[in-house]
Amino acid sequence: MADLTGNLLVAQSGGPTAVINASLAGVVQEAGKHEGIEEIYGSRNGVLGILNEDLIDFNEEKARAIDNLKYTPGAALGTCRYKLDFKKKPEQAAKDLDRLCEVLEAHNIRYFCYIGGNDSQDTSNKIHQHAAERGYELRVIGVPKTIDNDLPNTDHSPGFGSVAKYNATTIAEIGKDVGSMASDQGMCCLVEVMGRSAGWIAAGTVLARRNPSDAPHIVLVPEIPFDQESFLSRVKAVTDTHNYCVVVVGEGIKDAQGEEIGVDKTRVDAFGHPLLSGAAENLGEIVEEKLGTKTRTAKLGYAQRAAAHFASQTDIDEAVACGQAAVRGAVEGKSGYMIKLVRGQNDPYECHTELHDLNEIANQEKLVPREWLSEDGFLPNEQFIAYAAPLIQGQPKLPLEGGLPKYVVLENYSVEKKLLVKS
Amino acid sequence: MADLTGNLLVAQSGGPTAVINASLAGVVQEAGKHEGIEEIYGSRNGVLGILNEDLIDFNEEKARAIDNLKYTPGAALGTCRYKLDFKKKPEQAAKDLDRLCEVLEAHNIRYFCYIGGNDSQDTSNKIHQHAAERGYELRVIGVPKTIDNDLPNTDHSPGFGSVAKYNATTIAEIGKDVGSMASDQGMCCLVEVMGRSAGWIAAGTVLARRNPSDAPHIVLVPEIPFDQESFLSRVKAVTDTHNYCVVVVGEGIKDAQGEEIGVDKTRVDAFGHPLLSGAAENLGEIVEEKLGTKTRTAKLGYAQRAAAHFASQTDIDEAVACGQAAVRGAVEGKSGYMIKLVRGQNDPYECHTELHDLNEIANQEKLVPREWLSEDGFLPNEQFIAYAAPLIQGQPKLPLEGGLPKYVVLENYSVEKKLLVKS
Repeated sequence: MADLTGNLLVAQSGGPTAVINASLAGVVQEAGKHEGIEEIYGSRNGVLGILNEDLIDFNEEKARAIDNLKYTPGAALGTCRYKLDFKKKPEQAAKDLDRLCEVLEAHNIRYFCYIGGNDSQDTSNKIHQHAAERGYELRVIGVPKTIDNDLPNTDHSPGFGSVAKYNATTIAEIGKDVGSMASDQGMCCLVEVMGRSAGWIAAGTVLARRNPSDAPHIVLVPEIPFDQESFLSRVKAVTDTHNYCVVVVGEGIKDAQGEEIGVDKTRVDAFGHPLLSGAAENLGEIVEEKLGTKTRTAKLGYAQRAAAHFASQTDIDEAVACGQAAVRGAVEGKSGYMIKLVRGQNDPYECHTELHDLNEIANQEKLVPREWLSEDGFLPNEQFIAYAAPLIQGQPKLPLEGGLPKYVVLENYSVEKKLLVKS
Repeated sequence: MADLTGNLLVAQSGGPTAVINASLAGVVQEAGKHEGIEEIYGSRNGVLGILNEDLIDFNEEKARAIDNLKYTPGAALGTCRYKLDFKKKPEQAAKDLDRLCEVLEAHNIRYFCYIGGNDSQDTSNKIHQHAAERGYELRVIGVPKTIDNDLPNTDHSPGFGSVAKYNATTIAEIGKDVGSMASDQGMCCLVEVMGRSAGWIAAGTVLARRNPSDAPHIVLVPEIPFDQESFLSRVKAVTDTHNYCVVVVGEGIKDAQGEEIGVDKTRVDAFGHPLLSGAAENLGEIVEEKLGTKTRTAKLGYAQRAAAHFASQTDIDEAVACGQAAVRGAVEGKSGYMIKLVRGQNDPYECHTELHDLNEIANQEKLVPREWLSEDGFLPNEQFIAYAAPLIQGQPKLPLEGGLPKYVVLENYSVEKKLLVKS
């Protein structure tokens, strides 16, 4: 099995993370070590680049650029959200799958590594199965990534550690700032963070809290239905005690009826759809109105998932390791697997990679366990901290230029097309 | 003059910056070098701490803590916005001024350094004059600080370099992220930054732009009246070319009629006042509605002014130098002055401190000069870059703990009160 010779293709998919390029670097650097792998190609914008035969040649890139991908945010190859949707568009999906395999075959791709979330793992599996049906020997391994940390089957996902580190740092800093203005008759600062229906990112900010007076004072996760009355009474209790209150708001929090707090029911857009003003903004208005407390809000948005300047070195290392493991698995003859992270122990922290069968990738989201949150649901507890703390360790040595991080821009040297027309 | 012996008091005022504690460290460390200065005290929450006789003793703090103040955000002594308002409350202001001098005299304070913005410099001047009237020998020196960089008389203000560095880094990172998703039919990301009616902070993000395709693509400063039509046509031109567009929005931008863009006229709070939804949020809705372009927003809020984890070392050094210069000026017998930064040259950058008479502190805001912006007003030009680039240089060596920056918490050892009742 191990003596299959041909080219390797790597692609990236979905929303970027601070370390999605570290996995890319891991794939490319590991691929360079194996004799069976001849050329190393990248696909521009995920599977779209395969469909369009838009491939680049990594052997034309500088070794230093490949290495510095570990510190560069965004997805260096470009990404996409294109889905092989056999449910809604079975004909298009079947046609796409044929085309994908044609392009792979035309370029003698024998190894394919797809860095992405659950949808991308599903695409990887379909390509794996379809190649087998066509009798084309192809080894497909998925590499996990998501800031949301909601992928099942893996202890955690590359990308989460870095957003947790950056957001915890930001909350600690905002806490210092707001706390030092506490003579101003109390203030409540609400900070909205990402994570959709999973509370991992919001919960991760608890790592900033070293003393009972420290921010965050309240963490609202989507796993706990939002109750306005108990929230307001908690804000009041905190401001009465500390004269300020820092609230972390998961963007996707919902009330007991399942209604999103971020939706502003009083306003609609041009099509009559309710507008999303943001959960923190809406809660800030409620706090001002009901408690008379001055509020300020922040919404970190994409800043949090792109914050490579303060990424976790542990996260970078694991993202690289996942990329390397994917190539090693493929070279060893495996196909139809995703790399997962398996934690050995917490102190000292030990984590290694394993392969997980893509047929067994559960399709549900992994949420924060109820028992990792305080009884009242307003703060993650020691169990959560034991889980998350090892993931934010280590500060990368960033390449800097003119006072700012120096990011890699790939040369994007195109691979000559072999197929004339997109089918 | 130089042989005046007594105690030194330092205080902080107004909104914190990433380096307001660096100035504090500069004052305290410099004060320790002069024989004429016996005790080094801090006032809790600006002049409020003097009025309340709430002073702390810096000689009870660890030397390492004082030094690490250089990397700690917020105002370690606490801050206030309390004003001696002789226009609106002349009786209270006169009473306060008496009380301030009584407390200073009771503790044999002969040196007073006040770190703050324009209002604080005004307070410093009043204290200086009132002490002279009372025949009490007191040397008062102000230390400038503001992220907004709108203080006149000084080349720039400590605090600005750090917010400029952090925001430029954030915009570069967001640019990488959004740019890599550009296959998604174009996207416009709008990021709101602080600065009130001055555009320095918004303009500073241009330092992230190294190539014409780089973010930021549009920078909206309050100095240029916002024109919806030309803005939308610029967004369209950028997304047509690059498939994405990153817009930096100064929070205080106004239209030609002087109306703030951040005000949402369709909504009012419980008292009938229009709500401030934020300029970026409102512009995002306009872009979606008029151009059909998908938008995302971020509002950095206090995160930007508290981001000590990515402060500019140049800014830290200058903040320390301003604190040191204040003490040296006072020891040399000066009173009624503010420290200012005077730039020698840009390449290599050279900047030194001088004293500026507090009677001559202009009370207007310093705005971004029109000739430092492009003709169409959408981007700062080379003149702005030459001014701002030297201010963001250098990465501090942060003390870290558990993966996060380790911030100083002062012991706050109280100085025994000498006066029984607040008059």
